[in-house]
Amino acid sequence: MKGFSGLDTISEVLRKLFDDFRTKPLDLENCKLSDALFRVLAEDVISPFDLPNFDRSAVDGYALKALSTIGASPANPIEFRIVATSYAGDYPKDLRIQDDEASLVFTGAPVPEGADSVAMVEHCKRIDDVVQLTRQIHSMQNVSRKGEDYLKDDTIVAASTVLKPWHIAAIASIGRDRVLVRRKPRIGVLSTGSEVVEPGQPLKPGQVSNSTKPMLISLIEEERCEPVDLGTVADDVDVIRQSIVNGLQNCDMILTTGGSSVGEKDFAQQAISQLDGYRFIAHGVRLRPGRPTGVSMIGDKPIFILSGFPVAAMVAFQAIVKPAILRLTGAKEEPAPRIRGTLRRRVSNETGNRSYVRVRVIQKEKAYDVEPLMLTGSGLLSTLTKANAILVIDEEIEGYDEGEEVEVLLTGNPEKSE
Amino acid sequence: MKGFSGLDTISEVLRKLFDDFRTKPLDLENCKLSDALFRVLAEDVISPFDLPNFDRSAVDGYALKALSTIGASPANPIEFRIVATSYAGDYPKDLRIQDDEASLVFTGAPVPEGADSVAMVEHCKRIDDVVQLTRQIHSMQNVSRKGEDYLKDDTIVAASTVLKPWHIAAIASIGRDRVLVRRKPRIGVLSTGSEVVEPGQPLKPGQVSNSTKPMLISLIEEERCEPVDLGTVADDVDVIRQSIVNGLQNCDMILTTGGSSVGEKDFAQQAISQLDGYRFIAHGVRLRPGRPTGVSMIGDKPIFILSGFPVAAMVAFQAIVKPAILRLTGAKEEPAPRIRGTLRRRVSNETGNRSYVRVRVIQKEKAYDVEPLMLTGSGLLSTLTKANAILVIDEEIEGYDEGEEVEVLLTGNPEKSE
Repeated sequence: MKGFSGLDTISEVLRKLFDDFRTKPLDLENCKLSDALFRVLAEDVISPFDLPNFDRSAVDGYALKALSTIGASPANPIEFRIVATSYAGDYPKDLRIQDDEASLVFTGAPVPEGADSVAMVEHCKRIDDVVQLTRQIHSMQNVSRKGEDYLKDDTIVAASTVLKPWHIAAIASIGRDRVLVRRKPRIGVLSTGSEVVEPGQPLKPGQVSNSTKPMLISLIEEERCEPVDLGTVADDVDVIRQSIVNGLQNCDMILTTGGSSVGEKDFAQQAISQLDGYRFIAHGVRLRPGRPTGVSMIGDKPIFILSGFPVAAMVAFQAIVKPAILRLTGAKEEPAPRIRGTLRRRVSNETGNRSYVRVRVIQKEKAYDVEPLMLTGSGLLSTLTKANAILVIDEEIEGYDEGEEVEVLLTGNPEKSE
Repeated sequence: MKGFSGLDTISEVLRKLFDDFRTKPLDLENCKLSDALFRVLAEDVISPFDLPNFDRSAVDGYALKALSTIGASPANPIEFRIVATSYAGDYPKDLRIQDDEASLVFTGAPVPEGADSVAMVEHCKRIDDVVQLTRQIHSMQNVSRKGEDYLKDDTIVAASTVLKPWHIAAIASIGRDRVLVRRKPRIGVLSTGSEVVEPGQPLKPGQVSNSTKPMLISLIEEERCEPVDLGTVADDVDVIRQSIVNGLQNCDMILTTGGSSVGEKDFAQQAISQLDGYRFIAHGVRLRPGRPTGVSMIGDKPIFILSGFPVAAMVAFQAIVKPAILRLTGAKEEPAPRIRGTLRRRVSNETGNRSYVRVRVIQKEKAYDVEPLMLTGSGLLSTLTKANAILVIDEEIEGYDEGEEVEVLLTGNPEKSE
């Protein structure tokens, strides 16, 4: 029974993992567009036609030839004869606007042949079948030109995009109601520990309610993957091994929680190392909290041994599991909300380690203060629920001084100063 | 047929709306904790006991009295007799550690009576039933003290919190597997326009595929509300009115899209104004794009008339609908990812209006450039799909000069400079 022999930095762990972990694309799913929000697109969506598919009025107004408006002013109004009216959805045939003619068009209606611009109703005076214009307009004014948005064969949304509301709109605009997306990765979570009881069950002395598994399942959902609850098992190497074997049948990746240290009863590593196709990647990483994290490969599937303590498990999830999930989905990491503020007291870092310090960001008029909550306490959930941001201190940094400006990742709203 | 008479600023619109819109709390739902991620908590969750509920070892090590380690050094190792072993989940009775005794404890196990600290196994040398310590430790070292995380009767998570993974963990840690949350607001979306065809249906000349309704439904889902698709109807005031009446039976709020202008065929405002309990709030707002937005109240429910153009509808959603949704849920707005960069060219603003300019953020080593895409084009989806950020220009700002530093809201990842 002794400590971790060699500790890897996060980048070393990820390099070793990705040297071994050769992902193959996840299966395709033909998905209704209405269910596709935040899914990972598996095809380049190509426009089958120009968009708009016709010159379209962007306003309610009078379609006419811009050249005919030259010289129009309040002192010299120019008149046009109204020869037609087009509503959105109409497509008038055999209409061709002449120099002194105009067609009343409504927003979204096609601009008739001959016309190249639309004068807004607000800028016109109509008298019976004649409209007076008192200002010049330029060619294509208030017109959404055919192909202005997308041309035929343009890539509207590229494969591997995480679909946002405006991507959904763009795909709908070319008439598609289904898209190919990648299946969500299935990520198993197995909780180990004889002291651990599922929430809702009564606690005996010395027992604790499982908080880390529900948190990991939520983190997996937040990454838009499918969590698979593999249950909570006692500290028994055979039971743990069998649970992992079962999980591997259905999951693309497994997280265990608890039993991550090197103690006599820390059986997760032992159970995993007994499996066929086992390769060791790392056990013990230069991460604070989160040191006793383990990484292995079984066949083509990664297994992560995370701490039973929720804060340490969350930090290891962010630092190590999340990059592996992105590798699996093929998607890019989304930008996170960050803010700069002034440290209220010094935070130090054991050089060579990456530290995740829970902090409170306090807004003072236009500036922000950053108050570190605690440097330790990997078991303390309150450091997460009381924090509204995380300060990540990289390996080469010894710490930050009081008064120094730092950038933090917001996990909630900045607190207002009293 | 004429333009909007008076235009309100966004803050005027919201003030008028919130003067009238008196929300009552949404119904309670007794929700499984495993389904509660991102739901709005409807109760203060209170700790029924201290957490941890016992002094707990944070490491694998030897529990002993810190005072007995005074003077320990490599030259002067101090020995302790190992009298017991405690695993996580155990709760040894009638054990009391004396000055020269130690108990082997594993991570998560209770620290026995008499002991006040735990020496890590990595720092100890064990010889049979004796452990040698070569360094002093202080009281409570490596111990998670009873109540250190939460005390009995502490509020662990407050009502109105949007539940994040660590809140789920904190609620689970006190053994709860259900929580009270607010019902999700139901938000109806009615699309109007005779030219508008649902995606998946063939297009005739002059027709367009509905892109704005799928986008609004996605935006509602992104706000974690329940969208209700009220369909797409032709430009017919009676049909529109009846669709809104139907929607009001089931929805807390309704968005219409299309028919937002003041044209002859723009029937949404007309239909709404015929309903019982109608109050006018605004029609036409100082927003670019998004000017023809309308806001009304029917009874205690807001109705928003949004543009049929997706970009204008999205901007009005962000500026006006989203604050109303937050009023309904009682939750606070989540922080958004922002970044500062240098403008590549001037953008101007019509003073008194709030403009949402779609931009591309380009990373250049450690700095960022901001390239405005277009100032107009409320119908152009490509300005959204090609953008990765939005620059919001407030009413009092005339614009920003080339070379000026601006803060933008990221909607995707910054592009790498080539």
